[in-house]
Amino acid sequence: MLPLLCAVWADGLIDEVELESIRRTLDGTEWMTQEGRARAKEWLDRTRPPSSATYSAATAAVRATAGTGVVTLTRAGLALAEATTTRAPSWRTAAVATLGKLEMELGFSGGEVLRELVGAYGGVPAIGARSSGTARQVAQAVRGDYPELRARVRAVLSQPELRIPDPLPLAEQRERTLVAVKALAEAGLGAFAFPEELGGAGDAGAGVAVFEELALGDLSVLVKYGVQFGLFGGSIAQLGTEKHHRRYLARVASMELPGCYAMTETGHGSNVRDIRTVATHDAAAREFVVATPDDDARKDYIGNAALDGRIATVFARLLAGGTDHGVHAFLVPIRERSGAPAPGVSIEDCGAKEGLNGVDNGRIRFDAVRVPEGALLDRFAGINDAGEYESSIPSPGRRFFTMLGTLVSGRVSIAAASVAVARKALTIAVRYTAARRQFGPAGGAEVPVLTYLSVQRALLPRLARCYATGFAVRALIRRLADPDADRRRLEVRAAALKATASRDAVNTLQACREACGGQGYLAENQFGRLKADTDVFTTFEGANPVLLQLVAKGLLSRYGRDMGDLSMWGMARYLAEMAGTRLTDMNPVVTRRTDPDHLVGGAFQLAALRYREDRLLRSAARRLKARIDAGMDSFDAANECQDHLIALASAHADRVLLSTALRDLEPLAESKGKELLARVLSLYGLSVLETHRAWYLEAGYFEPMKSEAVRAEVNRACRELAPHALELVDAFEIPDYLVGAPVGRKSV
Amino acid sequence: MLPLLCAVWADGLIDEVELESIRRTLDGTEWMTQEGRARAKEWLDRTRPPSSATYSAATAAVRATAGTGVVTLTRAGLALAEATTTRAPSWRTAAVATLGKLEMELGFSGGEVLRELVGAYGGVPAIGARSSGTARQVAQAVRGDYPELRARVRAVLSQPELRIPDPLPLAEQRERTLVAVKALAEAGLGAFAFPEELGGAGDAGAGVAVFEELALGDLSVLVKYGVQFGLFGGSIAQLGTEKHHRRYLARVASMELPGCYAMTETGHGSNVRDIRTVATHDAAAREFVVATPDDDARKDYIGNAALDGRIATVFARLLAGGTDHGVHAFLVPIRERSGAPAPGVSIEDCGAKEGLNGVDNGRIRFDAVRVPEGALLDRFAGINDAGEYESSIPSPGRRFFTMLGTLVSGRVSIAAASVAVARKALTIAVRYTAARRQFGPAGGAEVPVLTYLSVQRALLPRLARCYATGFAVRALIRRLADPDADRRRLEVRAAALKATASRDAVNTLQACREACGGQGYLAENQFGRLKADTDVFTTFEGANPVLLQLVAKGLLSRYGRDMGDLSMWGMARYLAEMAGTRLTDMNPVVTRRTDPDHLVGGAFQLAALRYREDRLLRSAARRLKARIDAGMDSFDAANECQDHLIALASAHADRVLLSTALRDLEPLAESKGKELLARVLSLYGLSVLETHRAWYLEAGYFEPMKSEAVRAEVNRACRELAPHALELVDAFEIPDYLVGAPVGRKSV
Repeated sequence: MLPLLCAVWADGLIDEVELESIRRTLDGTEWMTQEGRARAKEWLDRTRPPSSATYSAATAAVRATAGTGVVTLTRAGLALAEATTTRAPSWRTAAVATLGKLEMELGFSGGEVLRELVGAYGGVPAIGARSSGTARQVAQAVRGDYPELRARVRAVLSQPELRIPDPLPLAEQRERTLVAVKALAEAGLGAFAFPEELGGAGDAGAGVAVFEELALGDLSVLVKYGVQFGLFGGSIAQLGTEKHHRRYLARVASMELPGCYAMTETGHGSNVRDIRTVATHDAAAREFVVATPDDDARKDYIGNAALDGRIATVFARLLAGGTDHGVHAFLVPIRERSGAPAPGVSIEDCGAKEGLNGVDNGRIRFDAVRVPEGALLDRFAGINDAGEYESSIPSPGRRFFTMLGTLVSGRVSIAAASVAVARKALTIAVRYTAARRQFGPAGGAEVPVLTYLSVQRALLPRLARCYATGFAVRALIRRLADPDADRRRLEVRAAALKATASRDAVNTLQACREACGGQGYLAENQFGRLKADTDVFTTFEGANPVLLQLVAKGLLSRYGRDMGDLSMWGMARYLAEMAGTRLTDMNPVVTRRTDPDHLVGGAFQLAALRYREDRLLRSAARRLKARIDAGMDSFDAANECQDHLIALASAHADRVLLSTALRDLEPLAESKGKELLARVLSLYGLSVLETHRAWYLEAGYFEPMKSEAVRAEVNRACRELAPHALELVDAFEIPDYLVGAPVGRKSV
Repeated sequence: MLPLLCAVWADGLIDEVELESIRRTLDGTEWMTQEGRARAKEWLDRTRPPSSATYSAATAAVRATAGTGVVTLTRAGLALAEATTTRAPSWRTAAVATLGKLEMELGFSGGEVLRELVGAYGGVPAIGARSSGTARQVAQAVRGDYPELRARVRAVLSQPELRIPDPLPLAEQRERTLVAVKALAEAGLGAFAFPEELGGAGDAGAGVAVFEELALGDLSVLVKYGVQFGLFGGSIAQLGTEKHHRRYLARVASMELPGCYAMTETGHGSNVRDIRTVATHDAAAREFVVATPDDDARKDYIGNAALDGRIATVFARLLAGGTDHGVHAFLVPIRERSGAPAPGVSIEDCGAKEGLNGVDNGRIRFDAVRVPEGALLDRFAGINDAGEYESSIPSPGRRFFTMLGTLVSGRVSIAAASVAVARKALTIAVRYTAARRQFGPAGGAEVPVLTYLSVQRALLPRLARCYATGFAVRALIRRLADPDADRRRLEVRAAALKATASRDAVNTLQACREACGGQGYLAENQFGRLKADTDVFTTFEGANPVLLQLVAKGLLSRYGRDMGDLSMWGMARYLAEMAGTRLTDMNPVVTRRTDPDHLVGGAFQLAALRYREDRLLRSAARRLKARIDAGMDSFDAANECQDHLIALASAHADRVLLSTALRDLEPLAESKGKELLARVLSLYGLSVLETHRAWYLEAGYFEPMKSEAVRAEVNRACRELAPHALELVDAFEIPDYLVGAPVGRKSV
């Protein structure tokens, strides 16, 4: 009882109603002796507080038995009792019940009250220390696959051609970027996206690993690399047939033939299905005539188009024999060797952009440009010898989605690059805020700004989320590399992680810039450039809100529908199935439990994240079904539920992050590094619960008390991780020459 | 009863438990006839649903009497009943009670169910329409004061010197920016910050109005203008005496004498009180010796320092007669006419920054630079004829805060500029998303993307908040212009609005960029530049987290403490006073009411915002006091409560925005514009409640049902405002040449 009684007097704010409630509870207990109850009651008279000598002797006793592992008043009380006499197990159960009830009722749960009593938080924790051993253990647990390949990329990144100063005039930046991409090709990094028999790594995962490492360097170089080898080269490798492979791939891989991936049009970005460029088959000439019907159908934002691209994979509707067969890909020359546009092709420079200015984006118009039949990338559909259209996939819809499946590597790559950039930003911000001193106790020295709760809260939950995302992206790359993986599940997962990782990168960069104050605003410290370059990650390879709706659709149709089309919401069978099932009711004990052991545990957190995902899935199904049953167009129904669908997709991503990370952590050997990682993931879980606590409260999964306890635990976790923050960014193992920022160097 | 019965069958999802609950309620009613109850019960048998003919006749009857003003099933039922027979008032009361209870229990409140029944949301609302009359009425209500002055600034902004292309090489951008600032000086805009007798407008508000208008133009020009005339000129005008005014001000106003405001040091940004540059009085020579003790004490990020500044207002600790008298301001020449640094002065260029690259920021070191006694800006303290230090303000602390008071205009100016930039960004994004079409119902035409709930939710609550902030900033400028206004209240308000407006500007720009997709990423559409330039608004003139803590401190000390110092938290008297008072308990009816009339009303919203502010204030006081009473250093106590203090400051800002806006709206004559503005402010209020619904749920102010109803009302308000979004951005009256972005022009 003693720790609880001490807590009653600790802040002097207890009122008579609460005291009376304790007295009543005491009267009902059988596990205490008459004398014990009487002595306890002496502490419960507001008019006669314990003397300061009594109080300090009592707190000293609590402090002496409460080790660092003890986190609640109840446990402290038990420890104290068991330190003096032996107790029967039944006594213990009864005591825990009473004390636990009081602790909850008085709002003493959450651990903070005990820490205040035992003085665990006196003074400022040491922020500047770090253990390289722990950092190494963490690094081992989170490193990506393909270590030799990654080492090779890092060696290339250290070459002088790859280090492009900032700022540069537009033309010079583009020139330097081109030189850098050529250097990557020379180093043999150009063919990784291709199948093994075409000189590639034989593994789509290896291509992403290269991309992920390159993301630590110049991002214009990264994107131009991705356009040339991933999108342009990848489209030939995956949509073309042997004749295309033989003719083009070696020259693509060497950068002898720079090319474009011309899918997006001015009027159609995320809605690729409705692009309007046409390729009309001329059966007599055995040619296709590629044409841009109007300005809205111009190919737009096309990387490599403004200056360097000589040929483009052009997505256009194939018209043959009077029929529109849907979107297909064609190789169309756009520039002569001289650099002048090819006949019938007009090219416009998109000009300066917010970022990625090393990439020469442009607009392309085709004025009845004739290409031979062989220009069609004909793996899935072609023109036969009789001059007729023919495809192994009968439905145009199915065909379209099969071709679009080539986009999945791009999305995985952007997810991986987003994590790499977030890691770099966090490395800079954590190192700076651990060193930068400002303000401090009156009369005392200034303290590192990472001592401040507001700075900890701005950086550490993002650091934790970045860790969790790292696990999920590594697992996604493995899935991409696995030829037996279910394609639709892969596509849903890739869309979810691309959206969440790119969103997080943008938000993390902003938080890191602000945490570094004026230093963060200087170009040399990288944030300006990193922010500008990654901003478009939320838009390209599928705009995030569109991707999240596709994720929701994938979940609602149990992966039974094709991805990439938002107009096909008529999936009544799945909706009905899901709307009909009900979640089992939650356990009221879970709803109320607020002790830290419970809140910080992976089992509870994962259950809570699963509950949110499942319930949002079922309620989305019910809402959609009700509308569709009532005769509403499925488009209107989906739009009315759009916030709900996006919440569902985010909940799915949140849960995937935690379950993947916990699964990967579990089998590791015990070490300080593993222990630290477990705490990082616990902060991730806590901060998701905190962010969405309104939802949990609305759903009745949390009671207000529990919601408040979650907030308190986020604060505690931040405070306790802050002294390990340097180890956690050291574990990203980003060498100083790639960190770039003077304030973010390890050797500072 | 009929509307409710229709609703029961509308989605076909009702279960037996709910039906039984309705039957039980019917049995308890006395206002219905036996026959009426029996007929109603016929609708409540799950095994015998109403025939489709019966159902559609019933819904047609509901539709016929439910006008657009009717928003709940209860009211629709009353309208229907009263359309057929006359009823006694007592009948009405009883019926409302029963129906209201059922409506709430069944989750039919929130308006959506009725709209579904009466079919009010069929089809896509017209997004592209606009009424110029309504826009003009709105504009009249929100325009800033000083209309002639503003018109004059706009005329200057249309001059070719003020239109600086983007991007430009650093040197050229700086040169063009200098030319532009000289053009502003020539146009007579340089002296507004000075008092009337010194050639100024005689009104600090006029200076901010000029700044606010200039913020619609190039932001480097704005900031260089602010440095020269506001900070440098302002420091001479406000901290100097007649001799300084006569000698310098005319040359400052004409840009003949470009200068700097050298306060920030490398090691001390927001913590100005602890800067370490010294000015030692040499009584024999009647001079001061200005010195930089080490690199950490260099003046840093100083605008105009790298290239143009010839003299600087330098803040340094005044040492005289062996005593440190605290921070004072001195005029120190830093550059010769030739452009070379003055003897003993070394200057370094900060180089490229994320944005504002037209401003030449630099670092300055002083190596025992001697200046005459007259260099001290001696309005508040000086050296007397006997060579002794003397001040009209005895305490160094008080003196420091008096001098720091000059910062308040800067904070008001940044708040105003932030609103101007957010208005520009919203103008571009709303016009683009109202025009851009993508996706659409299967088989139907594509729809403007502003039709999508996710786009509406990204833009419209920010637009509403921008409106509310506009009212609050206009009121703040009036307060600044009022010589009788309480200074401490002014300072707290300025800190709160600077922090919230700059935060909102950064977030709004990001949301607007993303809503514009790839177009938003092109430099010509302005977002990249606007984002980069305004990013530092959250940092300079006081970092936002620091300012928010100052606001909390101001509120906790009831404006009794000086601003600008975070180490002085020992304000036990105020804390005790506040911790002792209790809020009156909330009304349980309010906790549960979920009808739209209630939720969208200003009275309820303002009460809810006040409740949050008051309760956070009291709980912060309690938490701080408990810690300080327990012997914790006030620094540690404030740090442990930092998230709470920042929440308090934000809650204060949220409330000020709403109360100012409602107060200013109320006296206006009724018009469509006023009606539209009221709906905008209602969305602002709703979205604040939605953002903080977890807090309201934890506090017991909302029940889960109410929280969900708030979300539903935000969706509804977004849907209903979307067709007026163009009017709302037209009302900002930003001419196309200042909008700049091709996709954001009105004339598109």
